Amino acid sequence: MIDIRDRVRNAALHAKITTAEQAAELIKPGMNLGVSGFTPAGYPKCVPLALAERIKKENFKINLWTGASVGDELDGALARVGGIARRLPYQTNKDIQKAVNNGSIEYTDLHLSHVAQMSRYGFFGGKVDVAIIEACAITEEGHIVPTTSLGNSASFVQSADLVIVEVNTSQPLALEGMHDVYVPLDPPHRLPVPIVNVDDRIGTPYIVCGPEKIAAIVACDIPDGVRPLGAIDDDARAMSAHLIDFLNKEVAAGRMPKNLLPLQSGVGSVANAVISGLVDSPYENLTVFTEVIQDGMFDLIDAGKLAFASGTSLTPSPDGLKRLYANIDEYRKKIVLRPQEIANSPETARRLGIIAMNTAIEFDIYGHVNSTHVMGTRMMNGIGGSGDFARNGYLTFFFTNSVAKGGDISSIVPMCSHIDHTEHDVDVFITEQGVADVRGLSPRERAKVIIENCAHPDYKPMLRDYYERAVAATKNAHTPHILSEALSFHTRFQETGSMKIK
Amino acid sequence: MIDIRDRVRNAALHAKITTAEQAAELIKPGMNLGVSGFTPAGYPKCVPLALAERIKKENFKINLWTGASVGDELDGALARVGGIARRLPYQTNKDIQKAVNNGSIEYTDLHLSHVAQMSRYGFFGGKVDVAIIEACAITEEGHIVPTTSLGNSASFVQSADLVIVEVNTSQPLALEGMHDVYVPLDPPHRLPVPIVNVDDRIGTPYIVCGPEKIAAIVACDIPDGVRPLGAIDDDARAMSAHLIDFLNKEVAAGRMPKNLLPLQSGVGSVANAVISGLVDSPYENLTVFTEVIQDGMFDLIDAGKLAFASGTSLTPSPDGLKRLYANIDEYRKKIVLRPQEIANSPETARRLGIIAMNTAIEFDIYGHVNSTHVMGTRMMNGIGGSGDFARNGYLTFFFTNSVAKGGDISSIVPMCSHIDHTEHDVDVFITEQGVADVRGLSPRERAKVIIENCAHPDYKPMLRDYYERAVAATKNAHTPHILSEALSFHTRFQETGSMKIK
Repeated sequence: MIDIRDRVRNAALHAKITTAEQAAELIKPGMNLGVSGFTPAGYPKCVPLALAERIKKENFKINLWTGASVGDELDGALARVGGIARRLPYQTNKDIQKAVNNGSIEYTDLHLSHVAQMSRYGFFGGKVDVAIIEACAITEEGHIVPTTSLGNSASFVQSADLVIVEVNTSQPLALEGMHDVYVPLDPPHRLPVPIVNVDDRIGTPYIVCGPEKIAAIVACDIPDGVRPLGAIDDDARAMSAHLIDFLNKEVAAGRMPKNLLPLQSGVGSVANAVISGLVDSPYENLTVFTEVIQDGMFDLIDAGKLAFASGTSLTPSPDGLKRLYANIDEYRKKIVLRPQEIANSPETARRLGIIAMNTAIEFDIYGHVNSTHVMGTRMMNGIGGSGDFARNGYLTFFFTNSVAKGGDISSIVPMCSHIDHTEHDVDVFITEQGVADVRGLSPRERAKVIIENCAHPDYKPMLRDYYERAVAATKNAHTPHILSEALSFHTRFQETGSMKIK
Repeated sequence: MIDIRDRVRNAALHAKITTAEQAAELIKPGMNLGVSGFTPAGYPKCVPLALAERIKKENFKINLWTGASVGDELDGALARVGGIARRLPYQTNKDIQKAVNNGSIEYTDLHLSHVAQMSRYGFFGGKVDVAIIEACAITEEGHIVPTTSLGNSASFVQSADLVIVEVNTSQPLALEGMHDVYVPLDPPHRLPVPIVNVDDRIGTPYIVCGPEKIAAIVACDIPDGVRPLGAIDDDARAMSAHLIDFLNKEVAAGRMPKNLLPLQSGVGSVANAVISGLVDSPYENLTVFTEVIQDGMFDLIDAGKLAFASGTSLTPSPDGLKRLYANIDEYRKKIVLRPQEIANSPETARRLGIIAMNTAIEFDIYGHVNSTHVMGTRMMNGIGGSGDFARNGYLTFFFTNSVAKGGDISSIVPMCSHIDHTEHDVDVFITEQGVADVRGLSPRERAKVIIENCAHPDYKPMLRDYYERAVAATKNAHTPHILSEALSFHTRFQETGSMKIK
């Protein structure tokens, strides 16, 4: 057994160090588990694996609430034993995804800034019964030093009846000091979030808990299940170039400061490529106020371009993780991790004037965005924080490749098959084809610029044809549509395997 | 000519008192006009009428930016002479509506909290050229005392090259002191909005302007074009009763304080009925943080139930207006008018924990809401502030009658024909049929509770049939849909005049 006594700085708590199996026994069927983790970072591993083993024998279900997606030792292991009744607020694991889509897990897809407060308000059917939190260490006062993510951990600990702490020795103690933990009061007592600069610290470097609430402490040494990023391809490079070109024009027009405004970027390869592209841009003294700190941001720090990054999770690739740990004392000066309730807060997004950059599955000619459902029905991951930032940022971008499935799917469609962000929430669309700046435009104007600037040449004639016939067919339409054909791109794909007319 | 010299307290400004016709001459073709007004309250009348006359002769267009909808002397008069190229952010006038839908006016439908900042950011194609502001008075310092609404007036004045003030003698001077004017700085300099209670005052009782910027002052005595409210019918009474019953349960469960949380309510007869229903409820010491202060709130004040109301506009019925003016010294102690950028701010909505209550045109079985487009194409009014409050409130309700057009339209449909609020943004749906509490539910769970609790009995079997066949048809669907039928209720209505199957 790994000795974690030096990481449990309150000697009286050493008596609570136990096995993962014994800790898992504290969990009763039907309980609401509030668990640390945001992306495959900072989630507990050993206790969930032990819980999955127990569920395999005893056959029961729990409700799993996290920060966002988590690693396979938690989401995958519990899903494979049928142990999850209800899951929120985000997921990427393929076994969870299967269960979400076949209806065996009830999944609630939420704005990530809403989760902590709604759980405190009691809107999810009771409050947190047990919190399970991955930690670097426990302080002398019995408070919890988190690891690579903060997510909803602090709020879950505050609400929980009891807390299981998983001390992970693969997480370096040098992470200590990187966190800024602040849990707002609930209405009618809430006060302004006092952040006015991305590097403002407003809370504690640990999650307030206290020794009494800690029911069990478990040692673990399984590392975060980080994944390699896709290579940066020509399309991603083109989108990044379009973005920088657009920003250059905004700065030239006086609509943006010379060091831009705080950048937010979604997760994944395209988002990472867009951020990496800034390394070769003219911009300096950049700041980041986002959810997930990925490799591209280390590139910016190393290039001396990034003054400070605020996030709720450190999710580098395996290579990036090595790089982070090798230089953690330097990176710690330029990075803070906050609860997602603060990182994604509409209040701070609007005040700081964030440049919001997120990816879409598809968007339509009038500017609505589908972030979640393939063909309107199959859940991919979830809305995540895209709505928090898109609605409240200074300038809001959505990115997507203009086609998918080798060209059989157009990402620009007459009407989205599912809508997560509306026409009221997006300023600029970017595909590898170009940029559609829809600020201040009417729906008819948007349709023209989106089709002409963003659609793939293979689909432009079809989209123009739909739009022109819709205008002709509707005499009294702010937003021209032929409802019987609005979803015809999708139904054609379902019937023929391609949105193209054969 | 009406003598307004006593209302223009800076004697040097008396020289700028002129006719509406001469003031209208300051406006050049293609200019962006930033005009006061929010609902038919506090908008200029005489200068727009003179401008419309000039346009009739000279045939040119301007761009019209306001707080929200305005009265016929502004929207109607300018629309009828074809004088508006671009209109934002909201409208209700029938002549504007016609032009918006036939495409002769480019209309941008915006979240009302976004308008002022986006206009300052320069996102609408240039900034405000001329501001036209209705006033009670001009102070000695050359600042403007607004009338029955604040809307975007303060921001427009700040941005404008020159300002035309229309002093309206039908607006009592007793309105002075009812306003709290605060214009935030823009990023990266913005600070927290320091409101923590609905009655906090954070600004000035006037719009900061200064004598130099004032180019013309015009006298006017046309009163606000307020409209009678529809009578409270049985359906509205039923929705109000459902709401109060629901709130009672939330208070009993400890999820809501005994005096509730600040109430926000949309505009119109149903919204007014819902607020009026609180007069006979057990609640006391209520507060309101909303856009528009309607008759129902005077009822609550008169009944001693309402401690304080914050809004951006006073829009009573003609009877309510008499009542307001008769008791204005009392009402002024309990009412403050703020800029809509503050009244509708996501920051304050979330901090104060607003109970958001808005009306829908239709919602779908999975919880998406259409607030704007009849049959997905024809613009009614606009999203208004519903998104500002729905996304950020403590608890979000949408109301609608379960059917429209004498039963030929079901307001609950398989898929909305237009989406303004997504499944991520609504907690509770209420029709006269009942209440669907969808907090924490998955799409499949939502479908059941929305169909069973909110749909009209005439449409329940059709909706159940669609849902069950969609579940059967889609093996891998978080959100079951048959895309070829998802909009079939709407196309049936277009073809047969009824959503019912004949």
